Amino acid sequence: MILSLMAEVVDVLPVAGIRLASLAAGIKKNAQDDLVVISINESSNCAATFTQNAFCAAPVTLSKKHLAQYSPRALLINSGNANAGTGEVGLKNAEQSCVWLAESLRCQPQQILPFSTGVIGEQLPMPAMQSGIKQITDCLSADNWSAAARGIMTTDTVAKAVSKTLIFDGKKITISGIAKGSGMICPNMATMLAFIATDADVEATFLQQCLSEAVEDSFNAITVDGDTSTNDACVLIATGKAGNKQINSNSADIDTFIAELNAVCLHLAQAIIRDAEGATKFVTVSVAQAQSKAEAKNVAYTIAHSPLVKTALFASDPNWGRILAAVGRAGIEQLDISGVNIFLGDVCIVRNGGIDADYSEEKGQFVMDKHEISIAVELSRGVDSATIWTSDLSHEYVRINSEYRS
Amino acid sequence: MILSLMAEVVDVLPVAGIRLASLAAGIKKNAQDDLVVISINESSNCAATFTQNAFCAAPVTLSKKHLAQYSPRALLINSGNANAGTGEVGLKNAEQSCVWLAESLRCQPQQILPFSTGVIGEQLPMPAMQSGIKQITDCLSADNWSAAARGIMTTDTVAKAVSKTLIFDGKKITISGIAKGSGMICPNMATMLAFIATDADVEATFLQQCLSEAVEDSFNAITVDGDTSTNDACVLIATGKAGNKQINSNSADIDTFIAELNAVCLHLAQAIIRDAEGATKFVTVSVAQAQSKAEAKNVAYTIAHSPLVKTALFASDPNWGRILAAVGRAGIEQLDISGVNIFLGDVCIVRNGGIDADYSEEKGQFVMDKHEISIAVELSRGVDSATIWTSDLSHEYVRINSEYRS
Repeated sequence: MILSLMAEVVDVLPVAGIRLASLAAGIKKNAQDDLVVISINESSNCAATFTQNAFCAAPVTLSKKHLAQYSPRALLINSGNANAGTGEVGLKNAEQSCVWLAESLRCQPQQILPFSTGVIGEQLPMPAMQSGIKQITDCLSADNWSAAARGIMTTDTVAKAVSKTLIFDGKKITISGIAKGSGMICPNMATMLAFIATDADVEATFLQQCLSEAVEDSFNAITVDGDTSTNDACVLIATGKAGNKQINSNSADIDTFIAELNAVCLHLAQAIIRDAEGATKFVTVSVAQAQSKAEAKNVAYTIAHSPLVKTALFASDPNWGRILAAVGRAGIEQLDISGVNIFLGDVCIVRNGGIDADYSEEKGQFVMDKHEISIAVELSRGVDSATIWTSDLSHEYVRINSEYRS
Repeated sequence: MILSLMAEVVDVLPVAGIRLASLAAGIKKNAQDDLVVISINESSNCAATFTQNAFCAAPVTLSKKHLAQYSPRALLINSGNANAGTGEVGLKNAEQSCVWLAESLRCQPQQILPFSTGVIGEQLPMPAMQSGIKQITDCLSADNWSAAARGIMTTDTVAKAVSKTLIFDGKKITISGIAKGSGMICPNMATMLAFIATDADVEATFLQQCLSEAVEDSFNAITVDGDTSTNDACVLIATGKAGNKQINSNSADIDTFIAELNAVCLHLAQAIIRDAEGATKFVTVSVAQAQSKAEAKNVAYTIAHSPLVKTALFASDPNWGRILAAVGRAGIEQLDISGVNIFLGDVCIVRNGGIDADYSEEKGQFVMDKHEISIAVELSRGVDSATIWTSDLSHEYVRINSEYRS
């Protein structure tokens, strides 16, 4: 965690149609909150994106299935146990948990979307789940966003939440979201999870489109260590309680809504990087003048995943040769290196493929000594660009990830 | 470096037609040898493979050009300075170095192949190069293989060399090789370099084919940190002095020659991993039953590059969830996880996509406590396989790569 960089946890604004609850069910060993329910009013629309990992966890499999069949009435999230690598028993346990919550909420089990985060390879403690689920529905309240943000944490050191408001169709609209994640994580912990809700009325297909596009430039544009977890998920709920004319792909004036949704996703995604395991730097990597966005993102990720670049960032070492070598090995076909420019902050280090005539070690050092660092690359071969965010590779990262599971 | 794993530096057998010399020219700051010449007799054939990094260093550019035009008479290798990221001046300096050596050896400058390894972004110290090159040809001897192995070292902690012999066409044939590399490396150091020679008579095109195939399963099958340097090169010389009937692609009984050449490459490649920066484990990753060799290698590299797998290896933690998650995110299309088996040593951890019924933490721990560890994955989707070698991610790796260049 970068203490000096942590975002303040703001008061999270309630979203009409959404109630939340968080409690300690005894799944975590440290008596902290580990069970969260987010209840959703009946006429809401719900969009979601899930991990691309082929080994997806039992709750991911079940949430995908439920979402395809029914309109969700609640999200059931536990922390402390990922219910991943748990086979048929894990799937049955996730189903049973949905049954219990559906009984309390008087809905179909298929209207519950389950999510889990924590240790991989251990079965959910079902007695604790049952008693927790029985109690938790009595605690549902529109004002529990911050408590829910804390309840979904695993190795996170701070809760991550944000709210934005805007006016659409003369109505005040709120978007609130919470997230957790700080690496794929400390002994076998898994997952980035994000839950976002708005009281806007948004047509279902367009809601999914908005979420997919927002995720592409936020949660899908961050990396701590390149490891995609088995449990990653992001959910966006639109309750329609704001009373606006329904937003769809043909609506006018939806730029502000999209911009604020993107801002919520970006804030939460960047909060994960600021809280990244062992991080001492918050690093923005931008690649411009590429032939496609995929090409730009590929070069950016090659830089961001390079252990040599990451250790140089940790050392505040303006080691431009490592950045240049990472660009060179990104696998771009027929890259003309004489068109490559690289900037560290506003200092040009490489111009036209060679060290810039005005570059000096002092200028590079000045940029690297900061906590927030930007690396920008120009490829001179197209008009597409991409920006991603990452952290450095520190002794603390190795310590956190090599301590024996206990 | 894994002290308990380091290969002994054997006496390296001379190769008829090859003479070597090594001396301290003052390029390194520590007075150790930093200039090596390998002279080649006139009728030799020469094959080479070079880095795929788009930002290849000046000597790589020049060696490729010279090799395409002329039959090489000598390799000129300096350590301590990579002559990479040095622009037009760097190219001119490499050319001038070839001119000086060509004068001493009475050949064309285009018959010299230059190689450099060391700090990126600094110009070669040309007075030191000139005086070193002037002296070095007097020291050429067939018995200087071990000295040359030491002379090309940068952050390597041991010299890497090996010899193999075989009988072909009734003639005794020797293959000797040296290599250097232990990461892309400590403050801005670059490069894996390998120089191999045989006294066999081998037809030029077939020699290149043999080298390319040997490199694919040796130097192109190892990874410390996934960073391809700007200077990587591997050269294979066949002097023809053994007097055998020339070996070509139609020759009978060439399996032994190919096997011994592959063994030399593999020995040198594995020696680099055993000497990897901060390494405490020597890890073999094998992937079988893939639809193509490329698919198998991709899965193996995804495991080997995962910081979470590498830190678990450092911690001797049988954290199978991290291996499973790495397989799952390797991007194999339509992977049926119910066909995936994963073994740690001879212990099955995952069978048919789930934890093996007979697996216990104690069995996994027993394997992980060793210095040499194998991870084997079966995909149940084809007949192709690949094996690669890697090291763990330790505190020492971070220390070595984050210390400020001094």
